[in-house]
Amino acid sequence: MKKLKVAVLGATGVVGQQFIRMLESHPSFDVAALTASEKSAGKRYGERVRWVVSGDIPEFVADIPIVDIDASSLERRDIRVAFSALPTEIAQETESRYVEEGIAVFSNASAYRMKKNVPILIPEVNPEHLTLVDIQKERSPGFIVTNSNCTASGLALALKPLIPFNIAYVTITTYQALSGAGLPGIPSLEALGNIIPFIESEEEKVETETKKILGTMEEGGISNAGFEVNASCARVPVRDGHLESVVVEFENETEILDIEKAFIHFSGMPQQLKLPTAPQNPIIVRKEENRPQPQLDLMAGYPSRAAGMAVSVGRIRKKGNKISFFLLVHNTIRGAAGASILNAEFAYEKKYVR
Amino acid sequence: MKKLKVAVLGATGVVGQQFIRMLESHPSFDVAALTASEKSAGKRYGERVRWVVSGDIPEFVADIPIVDIDASSLERRDIRVAFSALPTEIAQETESRYVEEGIAVFSNASAYRMKKNVPILIPEVNPEHLTLVDIQKERSPGFIVTNSNCTASGLALALKPLIPFNIAYVTITTYQALSGAGLPGIPSLEALGNIIPFIESEEEKVETETKKILGTMEEGGISNAGFEVNASCARVPVRDGHLESVVVEFENETEILDIEKAFIHFSGMPQQLKLPTAPQNPIIVRKEENRPQPQLDLMAGYPSRAAGMAVSVGRIRKKGNKISFFLLVHNTIRGAAGASILNAEFAYEKKYVR
Amino acid sequence: MKKLKVAVLGATGVVGQQFIRMLESHPSFDVAALTASEKSAGKRYGERVRWVVSGDIPEFVADIPIVDIDASSLERRDIRVAFSALPTEIAQETESRYVEEGIAVFSNASAYRMKKNVPILIPEVNPEHLTLVDIQKERSPGFIVTNSNCTASGLALALKPLIPFNIAYVTITTYQALSGAGLPGIPSLEALGNIIPFIESEEEKVETETKKILGTMEEGGISNAGFEVNASCARVPVRDGHLESVVVEFENETEILDIEKAFIHFSGMPQQLKLPTAPQNPIIVRKEENRPQPQLDLMAGYPSRAAGMAVSVGRIRKKGNKISFFLLVHNTIRGAAGASILNAEFAYEKKYVR
Amino acid sequence: MKKLKVAVLGATGVVGQQFIRMLESHPSFDVAALTASEKSAGKRYGERVRWVVSGDIPEFVADIPIVDIDASSLERRDIRVAFSALPTEIAQETESRYVEEGIAVFSNASAYRMKKNVPILIPEVNPEHLTLVDIQKERSPGFIVTNSNCTASGLALALKPLIPFNIAYVTITTYQALSGAGLPGIPSLEALGNIIPFIESEEEKVETETKKILGTMEEGGISNAGFEVNASCARVPVRDGHLESVVVEFENETEILDIEKAFIHFSGMPQQLKLPTAPQNPIIVRKEENRPQPQLDLMAGYPSRAAGMAVSVGRIRKKGNKISFFLLVHNTIRGAAGASILNAEFAYEKKYVR
Repeated sequence: MKKLKVAVLGATGVVGQQFIRMLESHPSFDVAALTASEKSAGKRYGERVRWVVSGDIPEFVADIPIVDIDASSLERRDIRVAFSALPTEIAQETESRYVEEGIAVFSNASAYRMKKNVPILIPEVNPEHLTLVDIQKERSPGFIVTNSNCTASGLALALKPLIPFNIAYVTITTYQALSGAGLPGIPSLEALGNIIPFIESEEEKVETETKKILGTMEEGGISNAGFEVNASCARVPVRDGHLESVVVEFENETEILDIEKAFIHFSGMPQQLKLPTAPQNPIIVRKEENRPQPQLDLMAGYPSRAAGMAVSVGRIRKKGNKISFFLLVHNTIRGAAGASILNAEFAYEKKYVR
Repeated sequence: MKKLKVAVLGATGVVGQQFIRMLESHPSFDVAALTASEKSAGKRYGERVRWVVSGDIPEFVADIPIVDIDASSLERRDIRVAFSALPTEIAQETESRYVEEGIAVFSNASAYRMKKNVPILIPEVNPEHLTLVDIQKERSPGFIVTNSNCTASGLALALKPLIPFNIAYVTITTYQALSGAGLPGIPSLEALGNIIPFIESEEEKVETETKKILGTMEEGGISNAGFEVNASCARVPVRDGHLESVVVEFENETEILDIEKAFIHFSGMPQQLKLPTAPQNPIIVRKEENRPQPQLDLMAGYPSRAAGMAVSVGRIRKKGNKISFFLLVHNTIRGAAGASILNAEFAYEKKYVR
Repeated sequence: MKKLKVAVLGATGVVGQQFIRMLESHPSFDVAALTASEKSAGKRYGERVRWVVSGDIPEFVADIPIVDIDASSLERRDIRVAFSALPTEIAQETESRYVEEGIAVFSNASAYRMKKNVPILIPEVNPEHLTLVDIQKERSPGFIVTNSNCTASGLALALKPLIPFNIAYVTITTYQALSGAGLPGIPSLEALGNIIPFIESEEEKVETETKKILGTMEEGGISNAGFEVNASCARVPVRDGHLESVVVEFENETEILDIEKAFIHFSGMPQQLKLPTAPQNPIIVRKEENRPQPQLDLMAGYPSRAAGMAVSVGRIRKKGNKISFFLLVHNTIRGAAGASILNAEFAYEKKYVR
Repeated sequence: MKKLKVAVLGATGVVGQQFIRMLESHPSFDVAALTASEKSAGKRYGERVRWVVSGDIPEFVADIPIVDIDASSLERRDIRVAFSALPTEIAQETESRYVEEGIAVFSNASAYRMKKNVPILIPEVNPEHLTLVDIQKERSPGFIVTNSNCTASGLALALKPLIPFNIAYVTITTYQALSGAGLPGIPSLEALGNIIPFIESEEEKVETETKKILGTMEEGGISNAGFEVNASCARVPVRDGHLESVVVEFENETEILDIEKAFIHFSGMPQQLKLPTAPQNPIIVRKEENRPQPQLDLMAGYPSRAAGMAVSVGRIRKKGNKISFFLLVHNTIRGAAGASILNAEFAYEKKYVR
């Protein structure tokens, strides 16, 4: 089967780097173009990037020249799929232009997430939302599929199997890694040995995106999930991996064991379809008293291509109608680049891209 | 006015060190004896301690010999007040022995906190609990006054002014500093760049102590506060300062502005009595979008002797009946050594020690 | 005695912040103007600064408006002394303009350090270099006195008392703190848990400045010290405090004890003159096996106004003609702001400013 | 070819963990027994270990029971090869007992390194030293082959190709990772944001071992290399990877380019024999201005089984007869577990074990 040529937009940022790392030797996609800011155009990728993703920069991209961020240049290269790691402000204008020119954009940017006909897709959670693309295609040759905010990605995955227990309210407090702030991101003088209890727009994103992701497809669009999400977000001096302290209030009392089973047995379309980046188990339950931890559980997910795609859950506790647990999600894999790659694999399988 | 001679029990640990630092040139107390583990007895303090509290070891203690942990040796030295930074297991036996011998023990250990007639005193919050000492003194010549768990200390202080608004439920998630684990404490290989979502017995302590502290004195003892506390505790790679994400559910809707005012105007007996270690304002409200932070707000509290005794609160937000905020408390000052010193100052003023 | 009005140029950077912190309640200088980048002009200082120096921003400056970086505006304010924390590129043009307008500039910038008639002054080391100012004043109404590079400041102080032993060669490897890179400085993603073995131009500065500082005043200028300095510089994840591993090769064998004595008894003009920011002992010798450490020795220096002004030296070892030791210098105090304040105090005493 | 059954002694420590991680699916060795302290005997490995090596504990060992540290128990299991990650004090007694019972011990412990007939083997550097084993076997059925101190391992590898240029003197200052101190190791309160300029016995080991490793086999044993090594060692808050600042003084002037070529073309027996854990290039020269860095270069070494086995060198500079450079070595791979595994592979190939 012929590989699809893909572009990575905003390739020098942290998420752009993660896209590149995860697309190395991908069975379906072939990185054929990298874009970055104007001043980088024409330069070697290896020369412009401050590589901060695990290990050293992969050899296969070090010498690729960065092209300018122009859809027509993609067309000339016969590229029809783009992974976007663009900053929101730039994504706003660029992604819509790409869509006009017939590109399928799998985007990590938040610019279009809350737009009516744009899905925030997590194939294990809301595969049916992909059909929103059909509506988009009525108006433009290309389309946008977004992945969610990094914190919301882990939360929505963990809440999905709990939906049958009737969620009444979700309270979440986060410990978010530095890589979520990108590059240059948080100055080390502010990060080292400190906690910053504020991340611009993050709480709103977690609260609104989670409800859209877990919403149901109805005539005329998505109907949001019926419970509230109450988020408090903070930045911690950890390189990668968002830890989340979650308290779910249910309509009725539920048992820890039932919640645990629901987590363990959770599985979805990516697992059925054996998508390349799908983890065998999307949610891994840790029974140890002190897990999950970024250091130990960051790369959860099997097989190796899915490392970082599983969410780890632990310390499940009960108090009345409330169940508490800690959750760890790799913010630039399951929460960003890996999420969009899985989305593209799913869309590819469903013939939305070819 | 003559200073009272005091002992610091468990003087080489982190809280012991903080006691020493804060008692330097104290107007009412004079450090006359230091105890530590048996094998340290007879050695110079400066030789045995691994000093980790701010700056270098104060000169006035470096050459003091460590004495053995024996109440009678205190008596011989004419010491009637002891600050205890003993590990719980040792405190259990040692503190009760001291009490038998007539020592007033101001303790940071958790061993006796939940005992019926032992107050968990925060003079701004529950000064009337000090009268429990009268009951203790019916049975023994000495007595124990405890300070609360470090996390509970900040929480109880912040909840006190909110009591009039009718608290229904409190959800708290913590970012706890490494110094809370003492010495040797968390191995650096587990702490660096990692979060550990578990602290032995911590959540239980926060939940039960907070309700006792905010309880009311009644015939026959303390009646716990009537709301539940739901805690999730984690360790973060920060040296000092516990940050707490708090969601308070009220019986009715309340306004952010009223909550803010309640925090700002909060004051208590230590402020009225102008106790040496009392901060002018026990709660400081930060209006910036990204505060409080350990790095900036750790030493909040004026005048300089009260540095670290004020709790900083910020990011007050509202969602229905719920008010959320972040809170920072210096875990080894307001949450440990400073707390017991303030308790002793209060007891001194009230003539419980002389 | 009337205080001199002074300006702090580049007041929002790390060194600018340190100038402000150290000038609070200074006996001779009064901060009367703060300058920063153009876009900050007119704004409150507290609004524009990302405060990262110890504790929270001092109240006395929080509401001061930032003025624009124009010498004439200083004149109008009757300010004749400026402390410069400007970036080198800007210092190049701005400082010379200030000098033309009659300002005495005490500068941390490297722009003019190696210029013939500009002293790199360390009053304990080369007080006679201040007379270079007389030559400057023949041509312009104002003058520039620079403090050295932060790493060189500690090295030159430690080498000065060793000069009588005949230094043949100095090899130095550094562990430099993050604050040395300013703000925003090193991205946290590159700093956390990492070492970066490169600091732009740093090794050259250490090598050349040290020799100029330790040079002798001769007819026609300074004659450099006669030994070579070989520097290797790296950035480490430490907030403040440059640690330096120094190997001094002497012409002949020397004894550890003699070196130690030379360090301990070292003292200079600032000590004689009891300048406000002068530490009682400029060099403190640590006898413990594992000192100096940034965490413990950063603020060495007595009295409290001189905290951070003493250099700590430890682990003095010998191998043939070579003596090795570790040295710690507070890079933004003795290595930057404190250095220039001490220079200004010395110049004030010597009537170069009034 | 049948795999040899091997034991890992001291399997719960950091180096023990690294042995286990690297021996997973090894082509020649099969982990058949794990030993640890007495109180761990009989327990599941997964239950006793505080896993700190990259990622989570490998599944293949989690449920293996820990056996007691008794050579006869190995014999019964038909194990003839042991990898020792024992603490020195224990290694002293245990390893010699194992040797008496016919076990070939590949040891990371320092206990026997400086013993006359025990090689400190680095197969790229001194493969001929393996023949010392023949002398050992005259007296006992088993034998000991040690790997060097972690810091010395990188230094010796980098110095080997420079021997032909006539080394006169080596000055080295180190930035050593926390994992080198093992578990529990450095308390986080001492490590976080700090540098500790002292590591017990480390400087002596680097100085003496390097000269033995680079010594020549002569009648009657090894004759040490003829130059001095002058080491200054410090601990930095980095998880893994020792960075070393090296200044090599040569008898005559040498050119950077020649040194660089010598590094790049360096290769040895492991490469010739294509040993499984041998990196294609033992020394990798980084041309970037700011390399090597722990974060980027830690796992240098190709193919994947040899990740962490290559030493990275960069910033090669010249000053007269001196060449300076920075070097990075993975302290628990090339500097410990990987080193002994490569030694065992070499010994296996040379039929010393079978």
